[in-house]
Amino acid sequence: MKKLINDPQDVVAEALQGIEAAHPDLRVDHQHGGFVGLGMLDAACAGEVFTSPVPDQMLAATKLVDGGAGVLHVVKNYTGDVMNFDMAAEMAAATGAQVLSVVTDDDVAVQDSTWTAGRRGVGVTVLVEKIAGAAAEQGRTLEQVADIARQVNANGRSMGLALSSCTVPAAGKPTFDLGENEMELGVGIHGEPGRQRVPLATAREIAEMLVEPVLADLPFTSGDNVIAFVNGLGGTPLIELYVMYNEVNRVLTAHGLQVARSLVGSYITSLEMAGTSVTLLKVGDELLSLWDAPVKTPALRWGA
Amino acid sequence: MKKLINDPQDVVAEALQGIEAAHPDLRVDHQHGGFVGLGMLDAACAGEVFTSPVPDQMLAATKLVDGGAGVLHVVKNYTGDVMNFDMAAEMAAATGAQVLSVVTDDDVAVQDSTWTAGRRGVGVTVLVEKIAGAAAEQGRTLEQVADIARQVNANGRSMGLALSSCTVPAAGKPTFDLGENEMELGVGIHGEPGRQRVPLATAREIAEMLVEPVLADLPFTSGDNVIAFVNGLGGTPLIELYVMYNEVNRVLTAHGLQVARSLVGSYITSLEMAGTSVTLLKVGDELLSLWDAPVKTPALRWGA
Repeated sequence: MKKLINDPQDVVAEALQGIEAAHPDLRVDHQHGGFVGLGMLDAACAGEVFTSPVPDQMLAATKLVDGGAGVLHVVKNYTGDVMNFDMAAEMAAATGAQVLSVVTDDDVAVQDSTWTAGRRGVGVTVLVEKIAGAAAEQGRTLEQVADIARQVNANGRSMGLALSSCTVPAAGKPTFDLGENEMELGVGIHGEPGRQRVPLATAREIAEMLVEPVLADLPFTSGDNVIAFVNGLGGTPLIELYVMYNEVNRVLTAHGLQVARSLVGSYITSLEMAGTSVTLLKVGDELLSLWDAPVKTPALRWGA
Repeated sequence: MKKLINDPQDVVAEALQGIEAAHPDLRVDHQHGGFVGLGMLDAACAGEVFTSPVPDQMLAATKLVDGGAGVLHVVKNYTGDVMNFDMAAEMAAATGAQVLSVVTDDDVAVQDSTWTAGRRGVGVTVLVEKIAGAAAEQGRTLEQVADIARQVNANGRSMGLALSSCTVPAAGKPTFDLGENEMELGVGIHGEPGRQRVPLATAREIAEMLVEPVLADLPFTSGDNVIAFVNGLGGTPLIELYVMYNEVNRVLTAHGLQVARSLVGSYITSLEMAGTSVTLLKVGDELLSLWDAPVKTPALRWGA
C-alpha cells in the first residue's frame, strides 16, 4: 500500500487536523471540512473510512450548529448512515431541537448494493448540499430548505465507473481486483460492485455508458436545462476529467439538453480510486439561482 | 494503460475542448484554461503532454491578449520552454509588442535534470501566476508586474516526491518503474529523476524529507511569514494531501514559521502520478494582499 499517511488507524483524524490547520476559520472537531462553510454546510460528521459516523457525533454537531431555526440532516442512502442519523434525530428531538432529514438516492446503477437498500446516494449529494445551503443562507425556513433539498434529489441522477480499486488504509490491500483491460461499470463510492465488468473502452464510449442510463431514468428530455457534474473518484487527474466532460457534453447536446452550469473535479471520492461519475440535475431558474449564490468552503468556493 | 481518453494523440486537444465546453466564458484555442481568468493569466499555451508549446502559439497568444501595456511571459525553467519563449518574445518584439519574461526555478531537489539547465520550475509557478496576475489586474505597469513575479520566484522554494510513475498517453507505459516499497525523492513534474530512491516512509517522515531542504535553501528563518502550498501530483486524493499538510504544518511550526495562508490540492501535476510537492513562499504584506485579491479561473477561484 503506497499512501501519504502515518498509521492507517489515524488517517481520518490526521486529515481532519490538516483541514483545521489549513483552514483556521473552520472549527474541526466532529466536523469534516470539505463542504463546510458559508453557503453550504454548517457541520459534517466524519466516520472512519467508508464507515458511518456514530449518532453521538451527529447529535453533538446538530446541537452545536442549531441557531434556533432547526437543523437539516443530509444523509446518503446507506443502511448504517440512515439508521444512525435516525437515532441522532430522535435524540436531538428529545432535547427540543427541530430536525428534518433528506436522504439522497441518485445512483441509477443498481437497485440494492452491499450497504444499501434501494438506490445509493452519490454525486447529487454535493449538489443538494450546495443548493440547500444557499437556501438556508437566504434565511428560508427549515421546511423550505428541506423541500429544496428533496427537489434536487428528485431531479438528479448519477452513475459511476471505476478503472481501478481503492485501498482502505486499515485493510492495506485493494478492495477488489480489476484486470488491466477491465472496468467496473456502475461502481459505488465505497467500492461496492456495479452493474457489470466491461472491457476497457474509450472516453467517448464511457460517456455513453454513463449518460444514457442517467438520461433514461428521470427521464431527461430535449430542451431540459441541466447542471452537468463530471466527478473524479480520487485517482483520476483533471486532464482526463476534461476529456470526459467533452464527451459527456457531446452526448447531452445530441439529446437536445442545455447545459446551464457545469462542475468538473474530484468532489465525491473513493480514496485513490481511478474513475469518474456523471451526475445530471434538471434545473429551473430557482435552483440555478441558488447554485450561483456565493459559497466559501475548502472544496467549493465562488463569489465570496 | 487505463485512462479516460480516446486516441492517445488527441488527449490535449480534447481536454481543451472539454475546458471550453465547461467554461464558456473562456476562449480556448491556443490557450490552456486551468489558470486563465480574472486576476490570474490572460492566456496559456498548451503543448503536447510534457512538451513545450511552439513559438507560433506563444506569439499568437501574446498578440491576442496584448491590450497595449505589454505582455509578461511566465516560463518554467526547462530548456525547450525557455528557448521557444525567447523566440516568441523576439518575434513579438519585431511586431512592436513589448514583452518581458520571468523564468521560475524553485525546485531545490537537483541542480540540473533531464530537460533543464539549472533548477526546474515547479510549484512556485502557480503562486507567481496568481500574485503577478493580481498585480496586473490592479493596473500596474509591465515592469512592476515583472518585478513582483521575480520577487515571488526569488522567495519561493519547492520539492516533490513520487509514490508512482505516470504514463504518457502516447507512450502507453509508465515513464519509470518504482518498486512497491520505494519512493522517488525530488522527482520533477515530467517524471524526471530526483535526488534518490528511498524506502517507503510515513507522511511525517516525508514531510521532513521535503520541508527541511526547502527551509535550508532560501533559507527560511524563525518568524518568517509563508504561504504553504501542499500540492498533489495528480493521482493522490485530498485525504492524503491533508494528512501531509498536517505534518508540513507541524514542521513549519517547530521551526517558528508563521503560515499566513495555505493552498492544498492538485494544482501542478504529472498526469496520474501519485505523490506530493511542498512549496513555501516567504511573504510580506504586499504579496499577501495580492494573494488575497479576487481570482476567477477554472482551477483557482475566490472572492470573485
